[in-house]
Amino acid sequence: MEEKEISKAVVKRLPRYYRYLGDLLSSGVERISSNELSDRMNVTASQIRQDLNNFGGFGQQGYGYNVKYLYNEIGKILGLDKTYHMIIVGAGNLGQALANYVKFEKRGFWIKGIFDVNPRLEGVAVRGIPIRMIDELPSFCRENEIQIAALTLPKEQAAKMADILVENGVRAIWNFAHIDLDVPEDVIVENVHLSESLMQLSYNLNHYERDHRKS
Amino acid sequence: MEEKEISKAVVKRLPRYYRYLGDLLSSGVERISSNELSDRMNVTASQIRQDLNNFGGFGQQGYGYNVKYLYNEIGKILGLDKTYHMIIVGAGNLGQALANYVKFEKRGFWIKGIFDVNPRLEGVAVRGIPIRMIDELPSFCRENEIQIAALTLPKEQAAKMADILVENGVRAIWNFAHIDLDVPEDVIVENVHLSESLMQLSYNLNHYERDHRKS
Repeated sequence: MEEKEISKAVVKRLPRYYRYLGDLLSSGVERISSNELSDRMNVTASQIRQDLNNFGGFGQQGYGYNVKYLYNEIGKILGLDKTYHMIIVGAGNLGQALANYVKFEKRGFWIKGIFDVNPRLEGVAVRGIPIRMIDELPSFCRENEIQIAALTLPKEQAAKMADILVENGVRAIWNFAHIDLDVPEDVIVENVHLSESLMQLSYNLNHYERDHRKS
Repeated sequence: MEEKEISKAVVKRLPRYYRYLGDLLSSGVERISSNELSDRMNVTASQIRQDLNNFGGFGQQGYGYNVKYLYNEIGKILGLDKTYHMIIVGAGNLGQALANYVKFEKRGFWIKGIFDVNPRLEGVAVRGIPIRMIDELPSFCRENEIQIAALTLPKEQAAKMADILVENGVRAIWNFAHIDLDVPEDVIVENVHLSESLMQLSYNLNHYERDHRKS
């Protein structure tokens, strides 16, 4: 399948399509029309048709989408038909939460190692994976061909750690540290800034209340 | 200060301004020009001027922005000059990670309680806060005037829990469960879908590689 250039906004919506289609598949639904999908997802049917047209459509007029086919195709676009070697750097609660999340492995993200600076954590196993010390990190990344690293450590250590990871072949950083990383252009950074998400919540909470009072 | 209607895109950028200004403040910087801020934040200076103009500007031509003033004003817009009563529902690794994150309290988000369904966790303290069982949740929410709930539990339980929270006065849900919540229009939902973030990372990783190979 030949892909067209697709916009960032569409890419952002793809994982949600993937999730809904996966749920439909689990419930045994084989076909769905854009109207039904629209009702479930609370997105207009025309938005759905437009988004899916980016990938050549998949749908037949009056016949709906083949759920399994669409699910698999979107999975391929998202790169979920491959497997990735991943490590977690920072074995605090957040790092351990990620390590315990088995769904990631089902999607092809194999957690090969967990690292920390705290010597008391050395050798402690999280879901069978022993926590290793940072001095082992460079050789571990190279030997295990690690492509993705989740950074779940304090912001003070994150920048230096990102440099080490990139030097040792890591191609993508899933960054939970509250800092913008400065990495080479060909390294992917996906940020999860929890504080910023909470601030958006409080903005919306206040502004909903304000707008509500006015009316 | 009178606020104009501001766009969602600007609201999304505000927490990042807030973070940079906070860092500048900690380093003792009192004034900064839009050009300097632009260099640091990797955003164009004209974008910065436009964004900050939404709030009446704050800057004087040729004199730069007063860092402390701007930091405080953006904090007010984000609602960080108030305090909020918050609970965490789901005391697994992720819930405990949030409970341990002291910065939230510094920003005015007071964690008043942590809840779980697992009886083995009853009474276990996380940063001095005892984990309570779900049957106490309704009265706890009302008595402690809980406004915000973080939902860090499996998706199967999330929808029902959201209903209970809303019935007991919770006005905003910080949703980490991998599901779209169906709540009344006046309830704020801020989603953090970690799987979807990881899928965007893998999309970008694959498409960077593909685009790179082509050239």
